[in-house]
Order: sequence, then C-alpha cells, then structure tokens
Amino acid sequence: SHFHIFCHDPFLILPGLFGDDTASATTRPAVATRGITLSKGRRAVMSKARNSLLFTTLGPQTSWVLWLDADIIETPPTLIQDLARHDKPVIVPNCFQKYVNAETKKTEERAYDFNSWQDSEIAQKLGAEMGRDEILLEGYKDMPTYRSLMAYMGQEGKDEHYEIMLDGVGGTALLVKADVHRDGAMFPPFAFYHLIETEGFAKMAKRLGWQPYGLPNYKVYHYNE
Amino acid sequence: SHFHIFCHDPFLILPGLFGDDTASATTRPAVATRGITLSKGRRAVMSKARNSLLFTTLGPQTSWVLWLDADIIETPPTLIQDLARHDKPVIVPNCFQKYVNAETKKTEERAYDFNSWQDSEIAQKLGAEMGRDEILLEGYKDMPTYRSLMAYMGQEGKDEHYEIMLDGVGGTALLVKADVHRDGAMFPPFAFYHLIETEGFAKMAKRLGWQPYGLPNYKVYHYNE
Repeated sequence: SHFHIFCHDPFLILPGLFGDDTASATTRPAVATRGITLSKGRRAVMSKARNSLLFTTLGPQTSWVLWLDADIIETPPTLIQDLARHDKPVIVPNCFQKYVNAETKKTEERAYDFNSWQDSEIAQKLGAEMGRDEILLEGYKDMPTYRSLMAYMGQEGKDEHYEIMLDGVGGTALLVKADVHRDGAMFPPFAFYHLIETEGFAKMAKRLGWQPYGLPNYKVYHYNE
Repeated sequence: SHFHIFCHDPFLILPGLFGDDTASATTRPAVATRGITLSKGRRAVMSKARNSLLFTTLGPQTSWVLWLDADIIETPPTLIQDLARHDKPVIVPNCFQKYVNAETKKTEERAYDFNSWQDSEIAQKLGAEMGRDEILLEGYKDMPTYRSLMAYMGQEGKDEHYEIMLDGVGGTALLVKADVHRDGAMFPPFAFYHLIETEGFAKMAKRLGWQPYGLPNYKVYHYNE
C-alpha cells in the first residue's frame, strides 16, 4: 500500500492507493464486533498515513486540499471546480458504486460511502455511554445509530449543487480549505468524540469552527472490487 | 506578533516571538477565573499559530522539531545535542527565569514554566467533573490540581540528564521527534481531555503511543519581562 502525491498549488491533490475497505459496507466482515475491531485498526493506520501526507506536503501558499482515493474511478471532469465553487471549509460529494445486476444484466448503482452523515440523538447517547476509547461506526446492523446518511439522500434529477450540513464526512473524495488543516484539523487515529479518521476529522473541523457540507446529488464512483 | 522560522533538516527549528505570557505564572491576572478565560483564548491562538507553522514546514525528511520561544534567552550551547541524545519522542528541559533579588541585589533564579507536569488523581477527578469544553490550567491557586510540577523537581548539582516521565509539557523549549507530529500530534486549540496547546499536545502524543519526558535538572532561561 503506497501513495501517489501530486502537489499543485493552490490545489494540493492527495490521492491514495489505500488497498483498504474503510468506506465499504459490502466488504465488511459478517461478525460486527470483529468488523469494528478490524476497521478501527485499519482506520487508525489510514489516519496516520493521511496525517503523514498532510503534515509533510501542506505549504503556506496552499489554498485547498483535495483528498481523492485512487479507487475513485469516475467523477465529472470538473470535480474540483464544482466542489470549490461552493466555497465551503469542507465539502464532500456522494460516493456511489456501479455494478451489474445479476438478474437484469444491466448496470445499476448503489450507495458506497456511509461515512458522510448528520448526527442523531441516539448516536449521541450511544457515545455518551461508551468508554472514552470506543468508537461508534456507521453501517453495522447490530449497532444502529439512526444517523441521517447522505448516501440515501440523493434525489434523481435534482440540483447537483444542493448542499446539506454534515457532522461526519467520508474521505474517498473530499475538498478541504487548507486553513482548516493549518488550524490543526487532522485525521485522529484515536477515538475523538467516539469518531476516528475522516469522521473524526469532521468533528475536529467543527470544533475549530469550520462547518462541513455535503452534496447528496453530486456523485463520484468507487471501483467495484 | 510574528514568527521566525528556520528550517534545517534533519532539525526543524521553530522559534516564535509570541508576545504572550502563556507559560508565565508571574504575569497572570489576579482574578483567576478571568485569567483562565484569557489564557484559554490566548493559548487557542497560540495553538493555531503553532499548528500553522507545523503543517506548513514539516517535511518527509525532517527527523526532529525543536520548538523554541524567542524569549528563551539562555540555554547551554549544546541544547539540541543534549536533548536529542536522550532519543525520546518528546523531551522538555526545565524553564527557569533569572531576576535580581530586591533585598540582596543578587541575581537569583525561579521556576518559570509550570506546564510540564505529572498528572494527579485529583486533577483527573476535576477533569471528569468538568464540561467537555472546559480546560484545567496549572498555576491557579483557586483550582489546585496537585499535579507534580517539574518546575519544582530540579535538584542543585544533580545529574542534568536525569529523566522523568511527563503527562503535560511546556513549549518554551521542546524537542519532538518528527514522527510524533507526522502521526497527527498537533497543538489542540480546543479542549482535549481538558487540556490545550502544549499540554494537550503531550496528551495527544501519549494517545498515539509516544511518551513525553522531562529533564528537571537541565535548565533553560526565559526573559524576565
């Protein structure tokens, strides 16, 4: 597992070949508790890798950072302009996946990244009852959070630039104002308000006064493993 | 208030002209609660300034980062070698201040930086009873923490290289392995386990598995305002 780093000021593009299923619900292990442990460890490693990239490449002149996983295989060609025109501290498109329906043999699509969400009271209460080091992950049926997932908020044919406010963000494609990172927002490899990695980053950005946004109708597509 | 940045790989030296009394007990306001509010705001600004320096100057080849406040006016000339030979993730000397005793007219010295400490059960309990956003600062007599302060642990004529483990560190002079920062350890401008800035950094380093150390008998001297 390695990284490609392309640094183009004012845009710093950080795509990763992560070889990781952090965002994928479909490849998660069947046993939820084991899955959570694995995912926590993997996402801690991912966080450190992201931080290492970030701390070593961000410059004083950088204006924006685009986090783009190497397994994002389809986006509009104007991805950067489309996201940047919203002028938000943190903004994330909706990450889907195309697949061939076994019955109809037609190409269809399904939600892929479940890390972009709006928080729920139930998730907050679950967090309050957890140990300080425990994390609350999305997408495990044994631990429903009742968060509002951006993955399910897309509406066919509606405005691609419709914005929603988010509390957690996924990182398969993610545009961040460099000031947010320079203020100190990184990807916590430890439990931060019961969140880690990109979800912990969103919380940290909010704690620093930067509100994350999502575009439920603006889609990017993940490779189908 | 501005910064001088000198970048010498493998050492990255980040001295600041902070114009700030973050480490000084002597210049703190008389009213403790007001002092805490002021200090929290100032230290949040300091944290962001430190983070901005850190995120924009650390490179992949950097091995060590020396944080050195511009108002540190006296250190042994071998400061860097002396600290680095301990080969610790985070290491901090004891920061003192020289002054002229009004009665004797002789130059004496006193402890200056109270941010390097070993935690106490009482401080832990105080933290547990605080709101999530509240911070527990050292050096306010109305809120005694019973932490063991490195400032008072120095022993005249004893081994300068005697090490102790620390839970909080001050930042007037501070040597950090770059890997600690690259893992994500920064200076939280928000309450992190009821700590901010360099003390929060020490906690974050510990959460990442890096133990901070202090040298109670190795002194550096702060300007006497």
